Amino acid sequence: MPADPARTQTSSDTAGPLAVIAGSGALPRVIAQTLSGRGREVLVIAVEGEAEADFSPFRTIRLPIGAASRLKTALRSGGCRDVLFAGAFRRPRLSEIEFDLNTMKLALSSILKLRYGGDDRVLGGVARIFENEGFRIVGPREAVPELLAPEGPLGRYKPNRQARDDIAVGVAAIAQMGALDIGQTVAALDGRVIAVEAAEGTSAMIDRCGELKASGRLPRGGSDGVVVKMVKPGQELRLDLPVVGTETIEAVARAGLAGLAVEAGGVLLVGVDAVREAADRAGIFVHGVAPPVAGK
Amino acid sequence: MPADPARTQTSSDTAGPLAVIAGSGALPRVIAQTLSGRGREVLVIAVEGEAEADFSPFRTIRLPIGAASRLKTALRSGGCRDVLFAGAFRRPRLSEIEFDLNTMKLALSSILKLRYGGDDRVLGGVARIFENEGFRIVGPREAVPELLAPEGPLGRYKPNRQARDDIAVGVAAIAQMGALDIGQTVAALDGRVIAVEAAEGTSAMIDRCGELKASGRLPRGGSDGVVVKMVKPGQELRLDLPVVGTETIEAVARAGLAGLAVEAGGVLLVGVDAVREAADRAGIFVHGVAPPVAGK
Repeated sequence: MPADPARTQTSSDTAGPLAVIAGSGALPRVIAQTLSGRGREVLVIAVEGEAEADFSPFRTIRLPIGAASRLKTALRSGGCRDVLFAGAFRRPRLSEIEFDLNTMKLALSSILKLRYGGDDRVLGGVARIFENEGFRIVGPREAVPELLAPEGPLGRYKPNRQARDDIAVGVAAIAQMGALDIGQTVAALDGRVIAVEAAEGTSAMIDRCGELKASGRLPRGGSDGVVVKMVKPGQELRLDLPVVGTETIEAVARAGLAGLAVEAGGVLLVGVDAVREAADRAGIFVHGVAPPVAGK
Repeated sequence: MPADPARTQTSSDTAGPLAVIAGSGALPRVIAQTLSGRGREVLVIAVEGEAEADFSPFRTIRLPIGAASRLKTALRSGGCRDVLFAGAFRRPRLSEIEFDLNTMKLALSSILKLRYGGDDRVLGGVARIFENEGFRIVGPREAVPELLAPEGPLGRYKPNRQARDDIAVGVAAIAQMGALDIGQTVAALDGRVIAVEAAEGTSAMIDRCGELKASGRLPRGGSDGVVVKMVKPGQELRLDLPVVGTETIEAVARAGLAGLAVEAGGVLLVGVDAVREAADRAGIFVHGVAPPVAGK
């Protein structure tokens, strides 16, 4: 269960600056702005080669990926105990990781495990490394709950009956695949799963649906198809919350799909207004669905 | 459980010519040759726009897809009771299907169901239509068991320890996804599923693995990765047996993967020698693995 956002927010607001470790995409900047707009001080750690956004006016330190010792120093001298990862990062190579004597033993054993892990296990390992150094990993769900997808239709368009059926198929498929550490996002059309995301990423999977529809390999005259993005069972939510931005909306529209279903309270929108406006402009729905009942 | 091939073979060898309804790819011709080499008479029904192979010297009738009435007439006048589907077919449009009064009612109700079904349900419907007309659908497993993948290594190369670990991950993933009517084929690398086949087909999925490897988004220095192709639980085996041909082998090699694991006794090779030679030439393994224990 997620922590109560209201309570946690109050305690973290008194905990000094929050460090946003910024990877690629628009999310790190949107999170920094959201926190700052609420009065929380922010320090941005922009990971070189990943974070390409302009982070002014926030205090920003640029570090290469894997610069673990310098990161620790920067966080300590910035007075940050709370650390939030935002945006996408490539996995660093072992040779890129800076060690100091304190972190070396733990980091090495964790990283050796990471090599053979899926995303969930890798991220759990990263979280443990930070926690062992006395930092607190703060998830976006806790830090910026106002960016979470609301339940029901976000914009002007709503799923029709066929789309609702396809959404149910997608939700069930993700629930069943969750334990496999794949399939956070699927596409369904005419009651059938037509694409499953694994390592290729959401955008590539959505583009593939457009190619499949154009190829004539899918049945015609049925539903337009939907994309469904949910939180996986067991997902490391502080480090790997599913994210939807305007480029996701544009990809769904370009693929000729009817819309996008997202887990209400589970998928982060970058940002809420930008996603709503993009969906209305593209003529697709974005619909927040309740998570499936646990244990079913 | 598959029927005992030896016993069934004897009974079907006395049942008049076997009709091979031929779609695209090399499989229909290989099956016709295999049966004919064993003395079974063959009638090829080449579906226009799909079957592009040269079927001489076999008696061949060309029919458009969906020509159900003409097909029935051709099978009856050819003295065929046994019908084998081989190769790939696109789903016919409703407007392409020829009806006669006898088949209309059944066919219509089945086809309306098919619209909303995954492959397994569609194929089950096709089988019922033929069976209701007094034909017997013969699967390749029964008709040409000599084309099934054997257990263990097929050619010169064998999976190393990393590849065997990846194969186990892929086998487990397919078993878990089977009830979803997707995921007959997956790719695994470094202990993680990196691609799942849904509607795009095996070749497109394998090509995607090559792109993923080239993109640097996957961990380096670990395993090369494997493709795993198994029979799905509940799969309509008479109409939809998984098939591996030389083009699959070439795709696996082109993607930089270490090899291909197939379900022993479950995946059809087109043909056994051609696949072995292609694998040896490409420097990859083809390894037959036992199906996972049912009910686990």
